[in-house]
Amino acid sequence: MSGQTVFRTVTRLADGRELIYFDERPIRRDAADQRPLPPPPSPSQLRFDPLLDEWVIVAAHRQGRTFLPPPDQCPLCPSTPDRLSEIPESDYDVVVFENRFPALSTHDGLLPADPTGPTRTSPGVGRCEVVCFTSDHSASFGSLNVRRVRTVVEAWADRTAALSAMPAVQQVVCFENRGVEIGVTLHHPHGQIYGYPFIPPTSAKMLASARRHAEETGGANLFAEILAAERTAGNRIVTENEHWTAFVPVSARWPYEIHVYPRRQVPDLPALSGEERDAFCSLYLSVLGALDGMFGIPMPYIAAWYQAPAGTGQHPTDRELGYLHLRIFSTRRAPDKLKYLAASESAMGVFLEDVLPEESAAMLRKALPKRVSA
Amino acid sequence: MSGQTVFRTVTRLADGRELIYFDERPIRRDAADQRPLPPPPSPSQLRFDPLLDEWVIVAAHRQGRTFLPPPDQCPLCPSTPDRLSEIPESDYDVVVFENRFPALSTHDGLLPADPTGPTRTSPGVGRCEVVCFTSDHSASFGSLNVRRVRTVVEAWADRTAALSAMPAVQQVVCFENRGVEIGVTLHHPHGQIYGYPFIPPTSAKMLASARRHAEETGGANLFAEILAAERTAGNRIVTENEHWTAFVPVSARWPYEIHVYPRRQVPDLPALSGEERDAFCSLYLSVLGALDGMFGIPMPYIAAWYQAPAGTGQHPTDRELGYLHLRIFSTRRAPDKLKYLAASESAMGVFLEDVLPEESAAMLRKALPKRVSA
Repeated sequence: MSGQTVFRTVTRLADGRELIYFDERPIRRDAADQRPLPPPPSPSQLRFDPLLDEWVIVAAHRQGRTFLPPPDQCPLCPSTPDRLSEIPESDYDVVVFENRFPALSTHDGLLPADPTGPTRTSPGVGRCEVVCFTSDHSASFGSLNVRRVRTVVEAWADRTAALSAMPAVQQVVCFENRGVEIGVTLHHPHGQIYGYPFIPPTSAKMLASARRHAEETGGANLFAEILAAERTAGNRIVTENEHWTAFVPVSARWPYEIHVYPRRQVPDLPALSGEERDAFCSLYLSVLGALDGMFGIPMPYIAAWYQAPAGTGQHPTDRELGYLHLRIFSTRRAPDKLKYLAASESAMGVFLEDVLPEESAAMLRKALPKRVSA
Repeated sequence: MSGQTVFRTVTRLADGRELIYFDERPIRRDAADQRPLPPPPSPSQLRFDPLLDEWVIVAAHRQGRTFLPPPDQCPLCPSTPDRLSEIPESDYDVVVFENRFPALSTHDGLLPADPTGPTRTSPGVGRCEVVCFTSDHSASFGSLNVRRVRTVVEAWADRTAALSAMPAVQQVVCFENRGVEIGVTLHHPHGQIYGYPFIPPTSAKMLASARRHAEETGGANLFAEILAAERTAGNRIVTENEHWTAFVPVSARWPYEIHVYPRRQVPDLPALSGEERDAFCSLYLSVLGALDGMFGIPMPYIAAWYQAPAGTGQHPTDRELGYLHLRIFSTRRAPDKLKYLAASESAMGVFLEDVLPEESAAMLRKALPKRVSA
């Protein structure tokens, strides 16, 4: 399957937002968006927190975003003659479009700096996209076949390259929030892609650690050393194949947390070879199968790709130091209990881990599906 | 009321944990804990995350902690002849005791370092205490009278001094988690006190910013400048009195977030004068009244005191730079909606704020109670 062809069609929605079809067969995509859409909402603002040394995105218009609509009003299902959705076509494989309620955007009318505060502000430039994984409203990422996951990977890589080329964007993050337990407001299986106009704090911290480690060791890559040490220890490995390793990190923060690293250090998704992309798909479906299989219920999770900064980063070596990997973690700590971030986590940044990482890895290994559908 | 007397009685529970009564009148407290308690659970372990450069507390025994017991089995109500609780006496004003399921403890049998991982580990030394604000199971902090809040302040200050003196403790945090929406597992009105064996990441970040600012400005205190700028701008002030100011920060992360600063820079609670302690009580009750009054429903919240490090901190000037303040924030963004930390916040550390801080301050001001009960 390596070198899989994806057919890409770019179009625009009624309010000017970009929409891109990623099809597995060549299909003519010329349906127009016939909705009378209002102009995009007023833009967001970045405000700097001088104590925590990071930006906060203030996007007040998001309060009015679509919230758990009934299935027959899902904006991510294909359009029908009776109901026009965000996707003009009557069917699709994978589709990506600009978020209607974006936290960050490149549209006109960005807010000027607010002079009334004790700190600096900045317009909320950047990019927020939605990725629909399938037209099937009741599916989930874990129920996709390998071929479809591969198409999603192509879409992620395509959008990472496109957003990375935007002058405003410093870091591209492809992610999925799954489950109402973590605040999903639309049930249709979908993910999102953010192009941040700054390096997010978590990324910045990792890069700083990697830089310090490289300096101290004369050039060793911290991510690569962690992967090697986990493979040597072995007791936290969930599954691996020729190109990828999935493990529970020794210092996991969440009840069920899995890091998925490629064997080869690459900065981002576009840098993955066709073979590596292929190998990811079946491994990731196994991991998702294990998560849902563990308690026999759909697990809420957050999955996010950590990529090197889009441009030069904050430091000349940032792109060399970055090591593409995916992290997936669940807030469910038991069939009937969720992990909440209370004061220690939310106020102080200190995580309490209730499940021993070695035990969670063993539970996940036991729940691995026997096979995944091609 | 300044210089209020509190009567303090120290005792031990059946398993050796310390318990301290803080009474508003002199009362003999000699009831013994008559429960046959098992020994304390196996201790926790600290694991260092080399990428995020911070400690995670792995406390697997906490999975079995008491979870939303029915009111007649509340472990924080006073004991009755029929039911023995954590508090041996048949009544109390404020009581503090060591947590039975502690994330950190000073007890024997601490786990040795785990040699199987790619990073360092350390025993989970430290201290976790529970603070019961009242013997009334169905009360809330906001329903206490000023006198009782003052007793709680005395207990916080006493415990901050006591835990700060413990060699293992580097930072003391007094906090309250309120509401099942943020994961509270016991309804009885109570807070907690953690003595961390390291400087928590949030604190470390603030101190680093304050240090940098002092260096750049020739000695200015960043916290004091933020307070002064907020008082000048005025539009985010919720309420203030002679000694304290409550404001929504310009870069608030949570839908309803209030920072409460004393006018005078002090490192921690023990350093507050009697007058300052008095003045805090009525102001804080006003803030809590505004939070609950805004939507007319009990608001879930996290409230935490940010204090200077207990010892020398990570840097010689840390205690001079620290500025005691309280932060209280709610995860409720609308009467029927919660704010969830999804991928942007949980995976990347970038907060999306849905409510304009200036608007949330105006809403809170409007909901301020006319008076608080003495």
